[in-house]
Amino acid sequence: MPRDRATLIPALTNIATRLRIDSLTSTSEAASGHPTSCCSMADVMAALFFAEMRFDPANPQNPVSDRFVLSKGHAAPILYAAWAEAGAFDRAALLQLRQIGSDLEGHPTPRLPFVDVATGSLGQGICAAVGTALNARRIGSDYRTYVLLGDGESAEGSVWEAADVAALDKLDNLCGVTDVNALGQSRATMWGHDMEQFARRWRAFGWNAIVIDGHDMTAILDALDAARATRGQPTMILAKTIKGKGVSFVEGKDGWHGKAFKKGEELDRALAELEKQFVPEPGGAVNLAREIPKPSTAAKPVPAPKPMASPAYTLGQEVATREAYGAAIAKLGEADARVVALDADVKNSTFSDKFEKVVPDRFYQNFIAEQVMVGAAMGLAARGAIPFPSTFACFLTRAADFIRMAAISNVNIKLAGSHAGISIGEDGPSQMALEDLAMCRAEPNFTVLYPSDAVSAERLVAAAASHAGPAYIRTSRPKTPVIYSNDEAFPIGGLKVVRSSADDVATVVGAGITVFEALKAYDRLKGEGTSVRVIDLYSVAPVDREGLIAAGRATGGRVITVEDHYAAGGIGDAVAEAVAGAGITVHRLAVREIPRSGKPEELLDRFGISANHIAETVKQLVQARSTKSEFRPLGADF
Amino acid sequence: MPRDRATLIPALTNIATRLRIDSLTSTSEAASGHPTSCCSMADVMAALFFAEMRFDPANPQNPVSDRFVLSKGHAAPILYAAWAEAGAFDRAALLQLRQIGSDLEGHPTPRLPFVDVATGSLGQGICAAVGTALNARRIGSDYRTYVLLGDGESAEGSVWEAADVAALDKLDNLCGVTDVNALGQSRATMWGHDMEQFARRWRAFGWNAIVIDGHDMTAILDALDAARATRGQPTMILAKTIKGKGVSFVEGKDGWHGKAFKKGEELDRALAELEKQFVPEPGGAVNLAREIPKPSTAAKPVPAPKPMASPAYTLGQEVATREAYGAAIAKLGEADARVVALDADVKNSTFSDKFEKVVPDRFYQNFIAEQVMVGAAMGLAARGAIPFPSTFACFLTRAADFIRMAAISNVNIKLAGSHAGISIGEDGPSQMALEDLAMCRAEPNFTVLYPSDAVSAERLVAAAASHAGPAYIRTSRPKTPVIYSNDEAFPIGGLKVVRSSADDVATVVGAGITVFEALKAYDRLKGEGTSVRVIDLYSVAPVDREGLIAAGRATGGRVITVEDHYAAGGIGDAVAEAVAGAGITVHRLAVREIPRSGKPEELLDRFGISANHIAETVKQLVQARSTKSEFRPLGADF
Repeated sequence: MPRDRATLIPALTNIATRLRIDSLTSTSEAASGHPTSCCSMADVMAALFFAEMRFDPANPQNPVSDRFVLSKGHAAPILYAAWAEAGAFDRAALLQLRQIGSDLEGHPTPRLPFVDVATGSLGQGICAAVGTALNARRIGSDYRTYVLLGDGESAEGSVWEAADVAALDKLDNLCGVTDVNALGQSRATMWGHDMEQFARRWRAFGWNAIVIDGHDMTAILDALDAARATRGQPTMILAKTIKGKGVSFVEGKDGWHGKAFKKGEELDRALAELEKQFVPEPGGAVNLAREIPKPSTAAKPVPAPKPMASPAYTLGQEVATREAYGAAIAKLGEADARVVALDADVKNSTFSDKFEKVVPDRFYQNFIAEQVMVGAAMGLAARGAIPFPSTFACFLTRAADFIRMAAISNVNIKLAGSHAGISIGEDGPSQMALEDLAMCRAEPNFTVLYPSDAVSAERLVAAAASHAGPAYIRTSRPKTPVIYSNDEAFPIGGLKVVRSSADDVATVVGAGITVFEALKAYDRLKGEGTSVRVIDLYSVAPVDREGLIAAGRATGGRVITVEDHYAAGGIGDAVAEAVAGAGITVHRLAVREIPRSGKPEELLDRFGISANHIAETVKQLVQARSTKSEFRPLGADF
Repeated sequence: MPRDRATLIPALTNIATRLRIDSLTSTSEAASGHPTSCCSMADVMAALFFAEMRFDPANPQNPVSDRFVLSKGHAAPILYAAWAEAGAFDRAALLQLRQIGSDLEGHPTPRLPFVDVATGSLGQGICAAVGTALNARRIGSDYRTYVLLGDGESAEGSVWEAADVAALDKLDNLCGVTDVNALGQSRATMWGHDMEQFARRWRAFGWNAIVIDGHDMTAILDALDAARATRGQPTMILAKTIKGKGVSFVEGKDGWHGKAFKKGEELDRALAELEKQFVPEPGGAVNLAREIPKPSTAAKPVPAPKPMASPAYTLGQEVATREAYGAAIAKLGEADARVVALDADVKNSTFSDKFEKVVPDRFYQNFIAEQVMVGAAMGLAARGAIPFPSTFACFLTRAADFIRMAAISNVNIKLAGSHAGISIGEDGPSQMALEDLAMCRAEPNFTVLYPSDAVSAERLVAAAASHAGPAYIRTSRPKTPVIYSNDEAFPIGGLKVVRSSADDVATVVGAGITVFEALKAYDRLKGEGTSVRVIDLYSVAPVDREGLIAAGRATGGRVITVEDHYAAGGIGDAVAEAVAGAGITVHRLAVREIPRSGKPEELLDRFGISANHIAETVKQLVQARSTKSEFRPLGADF
């Protein structure tokens, strides 16, 4: 039964004191961390975990449990202390904080079962919380999502992207708490304790904003009650707090951010003060950890995925891979209720509008806000959805820090970027993705796929969906002919040899649009009596090392990569590392300067990745072979 | 003399009509572009360019001219039309829009003298405008900055980062106009024509917000007057407009975004309508282009840069490169009034607070908002400042799309990222930059510098400042010993051979923290009778190709790269491309999985980049040499 306030408040007050003590002792043992950032939010944490949230400490991943996201990830020690207090693990483990052998890291990561997404890059947790709140609708559960932010964090634009989307989607199952302790890392925050600055912003963005004293347990409980009772809009509780609350000699003092108390006199003095703050509990101490309410309702059953029909394209049919992508996620969405799509107001260019037409209830519009689109996808993925956030590939760089954190979280998101490279043409460089492969390849656990035709696009969408872990699919703007039969398989980590003979003098590795430039070069060279091997490297990460080495060795150790991407971090680098040590020389054709507006074919030629450049490079290689002069690829001097 | 409204308004109305006509004809000639997005803002553009701004059409780069930033870059055709109308170039050139031979690109780039920064990635122009407004203070000029945004663009979080900073800095020399035409690319915007949604947000963020009918010339002029008279806060004029205004059959219609009118009947019909909208001018037509007011005041003279004193460190002194960076920009700031520094509330970690202490008036605090920090730096650089925006290297990825646009703009920004790599230790992966080299190396015009000690850090800061173009400086958290004498030179594009002998069996290429792991490995191997060459690759881009090839060839073609960065896109790739075709095999040691919290030295060893791994790799290479077995570098299978 729910406790009456007279019993509850002293019990919560004592839990808050224990959480403060644990935050100090664990960080002092680690000799680093952010104890004062924990102390300001201890009362809120006690109320959330032991009087508000419905969850199962023994099974944090219960799909209908309330979610808690610590957006201010540097306060990890109090998150760990709260879960220990709840009985999820032995409190003694807290003293392994930040040690290499412990999963209690400096900032939370999903190595811990009670962490949905890694936090520690500010302004991201609230975006993920939008995703977990959307997921409750997807599975028909009434679980609620709580997210705790820092005040300094509110300067991040991504917080306001999340604010807009949560209000537009009327996410009344989402409750934020901002710990307004007025002190940032290096100085006072922009608004200090001027609570009205926060309140007017959240209200302007359509949220129910409640200003409270974050150390008044009654006020905290009342605010959480009010948030739960609010319909049609999310709530932000703005808690006025004191950094270092409970330890008089650091309370509200600058210069204590990210500093652990020194073991010995300094820590002992702080702990002695905190010990004094335990209050008597009328009727004896109660163990609120034993009374945490279980999740109240089951989710609606999510139908089992149905098999997805094979592609139905005809050889030679002209289809842009971006359009095939849209058709593929629509098919996938009909077959698998876990699949969701997210847009940033370009659905008619990425063709994700095909998905919206068939499953509108699992299509989430974020308007022009790529950070919350990717962040919400991370939250959805953490709760079992298979999200496809898509926009122009160049605008995914807007969410690069989210992509970095998605890799750390190892969440199951499937990013899709269209309009890759200079082949988009007239719109010019601001719309051309030329560093997206570098961005996604850099992450060690990212799968990077790059279809060249409609069949491979559809197969790779299905492969990405069934692969566990983060993936990126790169598509192109121009229409390209279908070159694969509908039953062709495209396993992740493979490649396709699309032209091959015993007389091949070199291997040309293309992907996406450049596969067709390579085929044009093949035809021209063939007419001149020279044959080359042509590879479609549809899987850029992981890459088929054996396949590349075999092709390279079969063609005199001469490999030419050609990519609609800048020279660094893309396909040339992927192939070069793969064949390292195998006696193969990789000659790279890539975009080596800032491009400009023009017709696609003009740009491919001007910036060195057209059939002309491929054929010319092959001829130079053949000549070099005979003259034995050292070969320098076109434009590779830099 | 300023015109009376009775003369002005019909003249401006006719200019607006001409701008609409030019926007249609140029996009129809190009067969692509965004004419309807131009039509909605034509009246505002006419008022801004021909009744408000003080500038010199013949010299758009005049340092004290008012600035205009088109944040909604896709409306480029009307920007070009306005400058043609002003006499900056011949109107006939508008018909070359989007052609490869013309600088009138699909979205504006600084190839054009009247464009400060490239736009086309929404939400960036207003950040740059904050920078140009700050620059007016730097040079003591009363020039004003005007920035025109789209309504859909307001969903980008970076817009609200800029809003906060502009209000906190009381930038009353900054005036925004939001073209609220209610239609995005793929659908209605989030708030349509609900002007209150916009007004309450801008007011909440501390701006003077004025709602007007964006097609009422009197209202536009009144709002611009009110903005100019406003003190202590920036103004946002919220102009309610109709997309496609002036062409009845597209006005307010969805599905016309980014569509040019078809030449022939469709275009003719639209032009015929517009022609009818010319109004009589009482007293005869006036040529407002001839009456554009000149910039009113000269800037205060910026003192000539003084030479910067040499570094004053002692060999063996333990100094973190991040701290040497802070000391260096402080020295530079005192010597050169063009130098400014920008922070995102980590000045005490990046040590940019050393700069703040000596030149507080050129230190700009952005709080925790990396996008506006970098965007404002772009605006400052475009106006002659040399900005050093710095934060943790991992959080620069938050501004990756701004960095992409900085490359397109080729602006003179000097990004600095501290706390690179796993060597930060206990804070964990969210705080570790392991993809920052990939991000910056990908941009073809970026200089990437990576000091290993305090002397090289100071020299490279000076080198970056005197180099024209974008640069990135990567620094480390741990203290490292000074290994270079104070008079050592560090030219961009060079490297340092720090250990060398005639007997070297391999070359170890390190940078930053790994230089010291390489030196430890050197000592250990030396003790075992094996000598290796050790290179400090302080210039990661451009890289010293000849130096690397010479070292590789002198050491049996065996090169080992070791970097505190993920394997893709960093130093291994840079070296591999540089030595391609020279008969050298590059073995890469890099971080190949998501790291975790731990002590720096524990992490360096666990993730494969410690002295142990270097020494072990050298031994395997030497063995491979004798046994001729094919060598596979540690952990390179993936």
